[in-house]
Amino acid sequence: MKVDGKSYRTIWLGADGWSVEIIDQTLLPHAFAVLRLTTLEEAARAIRDMQVRGAPLIGAMAAYGLALAMRADASDAHLKEAYAVLALTRPTAVNLRWALDRVRGVLASRPSHARAAAAYDEAARIADEDVATNEAIGKFGLDLIRDVARLKAGMPVHILTHCNAGWLATVDWGTATAPIYMAHDAGIPVHVWVDETRPRNQGAALTAWELGHHGVPHTVIVDNAGGHLMQRGHVDMVIVGTDRTTATGDVGNKIGTYLKALAAHDNGVPFYVALPSSTIDFTITDGLKQIPIEERSGDEVAWISGATEHGEVTRVRLVPEGAYVANYAFDVTPARLVSRLITERGVIPATRDAIARVFPERVVG
Amino acid sequence: MKVDGKSYRTIWLGADGWSVEIIDQTLLPHAFAVLRLTTLEEAARAIRDMQVRGAPLIGAMAAYGLALAMRADASDAHLKEAYAVLALTRPTAVNLRWALDRVRGVLASRPSHARAAAAYDEAARIADEDVATNEAIGKFGLDLIRDVARLKAGMPVHILTHCNAGWLATVDWGTATAPIYMAHDAGIPVHVWVDETRPRNQGAALTAWELGHHGVPHTVIVDNAGGHLMQRGHVDMVIVGTDRTTATGDVGNKIGTYLKALAAHDNGVPFYVALPSSTIDFTITDGLKQIPIEERSGDEVAWISGATEHGEVTRVRLVPEGAYVANYAFDVTPARLVSRLITERGVIPATRDAIARVFPERVVG
Repeated sequence: MKVDGKSYRTIWLGADGWSVEIIDQTLLPHAFAVLRLTTLEEAARAIRDMQVRGAPLIGAMAAYGLALAMRADASDAHLKEAYAVLALTRPTAVNLRWALDRVRGVLASRPSHARAAAAYDEAARIADEDVATNEAIGKFGLDLIRDVARLKAGMPVHILTHCNAGWLATVDWGTATAPIYMAHDAGIPVHVWVDETRPRNQGAALTAWELGHHGVPHTVIVDNAGGHLMQRGHVDMVIVGTDRTTATGDVGNKIGTYLKALAAHDNGVPFYVALPSSTIDFTITDGLKQIPIEERSGDEVAWISGATEHGEVTRVRLVPEGAYVANYAFDVTPARLVSRLITERGVIPATRDAIARVFPERVVG
Repeated sequence: MKVDGKSYRTIWLGADGWSVEIIDQTLLPHAFAVLRLTTLEEAARAIRDMQVRGAPLIGAMAAYGLALAMRADASDAHLKEAYAVLALTRPTAVNLRWALDRVRGVLASRPSHARAAAAYDEAARIADEDVATNEAIGKFGLDLIRDVARLKAGMPVHILTHCNAGWLATVDWGTATAPIYMAHDAGIPVHVWVDETRPRNQGAALTAWELGHHGVPHTVIVDNAGGHLMQRGHVDMVIVGTDRTTATGDVGNKIGTYLKALAAHDNGVPFYVALPSSTIDFTITDGLKQIPIEERSGDEVAWISGATEHGEVTRVRLVPEGAYVANYAFDVTPARLVSRLITERGVIPATRDAIARVFPERVVG
């Protein structure tokens, strides 16, 4: 998407044709900087330190990390080592393993001299496929926005989103944001309510940043405000992403998503989940029982970082010294609260039958 | 309540018998300091700068402000001036006007030389009445907690609260916290989930502070987490306060309360609102239409203050520079989502009939 008029992806090949460039997301929203990665170690660090984040982007970064490693030394031993180094950067990221396995699979049968080129090729394919998937999600979601826009006769369509399921979490377009960018680019007036998304503030820090730099009208609100806005008729639809959705349509996503789904349901506001089908876990059918909820460090709640009046980025403590703090990263929104899933193959009900009908090759058991 | 073993109210007479002492709440949770007020101006500043906050405490502070003013100069002109100065400190605080009117009413008919003593007397009465009201709320609420404790056979009763309806917002006990303190003091094991309560973080900053210093087990969570905890059966009841409740039981309270009420309803968790009947507005019957929602400065969302690693309190910006931000202070929880109101006259359904039956003298029209 655009950053002040110039088009970017979140990851791309440098002008030299082999180094890998990324946006250093740890500096957002306070500074925009491009980072040039030239080694396996730098690629691993980018994932580990969350200079890149978001499942699809992590996958692409890992693939390019293998490419950088193969360029330096394409031996079997180094391939094995590079795989291990990258796999350990974010132990629970399913996409990371998937991308590594895919590239390794391609390389395994190749002679050393052909491996670097093949790895770059496969990494580019992984990145391009992510863009194509999000583009497809965007086009299907665009139809939903267009339908509402028609009824609003020129007034903006108000869309609430939670967390960052934006282009910064993918290679381009984002998932929840893809329909929004497409609507905006098509001249449909949209306005986005951006949930701050405590504790890591990905909404306030990342979604607001990317919407603002692409030129999409938006307003940051605290996570507490969505229900009030829906009660007052100020939200036309909710679109969120997901980290993991069950075969039955239960949606695991950033903590707080469930509360917004309840409010949408209570106020007759459509609640959409935009997702690449790769995030559907066909092996599970009960989100509450089967989606494990990561408990993260309480420091993410107790401390927050931001920019001082002088522009210096610093960390401050928000709670009394020594206070007990708990930090649940995700929650589960039951399928009954989900109006529709927006997938790369179309907009479908969040039901086992509908999901199986559209992705028959993925059905398990 | 107690601060590390020593009993405090939020406002009291100094050892000299005339100065007024308060806890400087602007320093919480990072420092605890008692402030001695000796003039009308200092009292007015304490309200204006939110060194004291919370409707009942503001009322008591205003009453003592008039007493300090009368001690300096008990003329009609100065009474009029002092009333005006104090009334302007927080223009929308209903309790402020109510307390000022009450003290002025007592003073009007007194000769100047008797006014200071009468003002101190009335201020003390206002403070004591608030304590008695909260004590009554606490006792009725305690029964509810005791009932749950019996079923839990020694396991802690988990209570979720939002914002600060604690003793810091009143003269003592608090409203939502009164039942909790009484249960804790009675040896019933309780554990409180403290909603952070963005944007002003009164939960993380004030409720966590007061519970911690009184010794009540508690855990700070982000506002997004309550639904998840209720889904998992980790919340036995919700108790919140209210700024304004309609004659029909619709509850205006800190933004985000509605979302917690929805989650409680969806999970069969009792949702209680603790309130002194003074916050019931018998002239209105439709909360969504008739409770005005204050929109405050976006800076409260965009910036946050906390303590750095070096203990220095500073402000940091959380959103991209120039981002649009909206800040709604309250929302309305429809009566249908409220299990019971905990009032100083008992625990009652949030219905027009029940409220009118218990407070017949207040019914309008």
